[in-house]
Amino acid sequence: MADLARLSLNTITVRDQWTLAQCIEGCARHGIRWIEPWRDKIAEYGLNNAARHIRDAGLSVSGVCRGGLFTTGAPDDNRRAIDEAAALGAPNLVIVAGGLPAGSKDLPAARRIVADALAELAPYARAAGVALALEPLHPMTCADRCVISTTAQALELARPLDLQLALDVYHIWWDPTLEPSIAAAAGRIAAFHVCDWLVPTRDTVFDRGMMGDGVIDIPRIRALVESAGYSGPIGVEILSRAWWNRDPDEVLRIARERFSACV
Amino acid sequence: MADLARLSLNTITVRDQWTLAQCIEGCARHGIRWIEPWRDKIAEYGLNNAARHIRDAGLSVSGVCRGGLFTTGAPDDNRRAIDEAAALGAPNLVIVAGGLPAGSKDLPAARRIVADALAELAPYARAAGVALALEPLHPMTCADRCVISTTAQALELARPLDLQLALDVYHIWWDPTLEPSIAAAAGRIAAFHVCDWLVPTRDTVFDRGMMGDGVIDIPRIRALVESAGYSGPIGVEILSRAWWNRDPDEVLRIARERFSACV
Repeated sequence: MADLARLSLNTITVRDQWTLAQCIEGCARHGIRWIEPWRDKIAEYGLNNAARHIRDAGLSVSGVCRGGLFTTGAPDDNRRAIDEAAALGAPNLVIVAGGLPAGSKDLPAARRIVADALAELAPYARAAGVALALEPLHPMTCADRCVISTTAQALELARPLDLQLALDVYHIWWDPTLEPSIAAAAGRIAAFHVCDWLVPTRDTVFDRGMMGDGVIDIPRIRALVESAGYSGPIGVEILSRAWWNRDPDEVLRIARERFSACV
Repeated sequence: MADLARLSLNTITVRDQWTLAQCIEGCARHGIRWIEPWRDKIAEYGLNNAARHIRDAGLSVSGVCRGGLFTTGAPDDNRRAIDEAAALGAPNLVIVAGGLPAGSKDLPAARRIVADALAELAPYARAAGVALALEPLHPMTCADRCVISTTAQALELARPLDLQLALDVYHIWWDPTLEPSIAAAAGRIAAFHVCDWLVPTRDTVFDRGMMGDGVIDIPRIRALVESAGYSGPIGVEILSRAWWNRDPDEVLRIARERFSACV
């Protein structure tokens, strides 16, 4: 099972309970070496405070969540997101494409907007030494969050621009072409996220499960990702109203246990 | 826009309001020529009663919903479903594969069960003159309803067994490979269903929208399906707690209007 040294705390897992400062202290307390902050937590704390505190606590940043949302338009903000990732020493910025523009039903057009925006942003990221890690999101989020729905589709966009991918078991586990798609992404995987798919799923965004509580064969997907050359940190990213209502130290304790047992 | 003569009432659209007898009378009253009954409604009315009433009302059956659910195991029941479809003069039986077997996380194994079950069932359906119309369901239903998630995947299963497909805009609209996948299914589409994807979607099963209330570019998908040779009836299939709470005659009136305006 997965080596605990690879566990990265994605801060959204304790979004409602902890500030970034508390997340950093929590990681230190629970022997977690990596952290993956969301930008709202960074903004709240201040970029310099965040960078110093993370460094002083002996943590490394596995990535920053998240840039993108191109279809609703915020190009300057994405440059700031890249600057923040660079300041934190993060190797990548996770990119979520965005959904359909307001009032539009034109999915091919939305996807062209994303491709164009990525092409525009890529040189800035390259100059900053931050990889853009394009994340396919579950098809149930296609309308309102992300028009990039599969690993193969993300790879097709990433390849010509020399971008990377962020793969999350929650978004990709159902994909009948998962095996060949991940193999084709060899050398292009910058981030790997875990959680679980609950049955039933009561919300299309905020009802993810703790690893082991759902039906995803996480070790199988980890093996595919590792066969494709990825051996870096593994982010525990659980968007869940249920887990946001739990004691955050208990959340981290259980996440550690499950990381060893179920990832 | 779509010719009203193609509208077929899928009985689940008024599941909670009407019996099959009421659905038949409702179709006759609203000038709807096709009906697509679910098996529970057929069972409730009795197969012979259903067949006689549908015939007497001058309606035709576009298909029967549904068989399959192979991963939870009911092979005899699927033969009965084929018999029922034949008795009703339905050209096809819609097949929903089924999700993961209870306690299993092995998605490839579940898909093998489905392939084997289809191979076993296909000769019986062929002898009965009923096409098995394999329906890919939205990936958000992969765990608990259907491990066949894309048109391409359904086609890969259908082709060697000479089966047909049932395509529903709700399940396939997000697919980045939709255009080539539907083109590849030319001559193999037996059923086409419409409804809409609401934003937000509050339930993964029972929150479908009336055509025009969501973000699906239905005419684009209809054009793809027609380019692939399908010109038959179009089922209005809306699983929705909201529409189940409306006056059923109003539901049919609005469905007719929207069929003309938005399909």
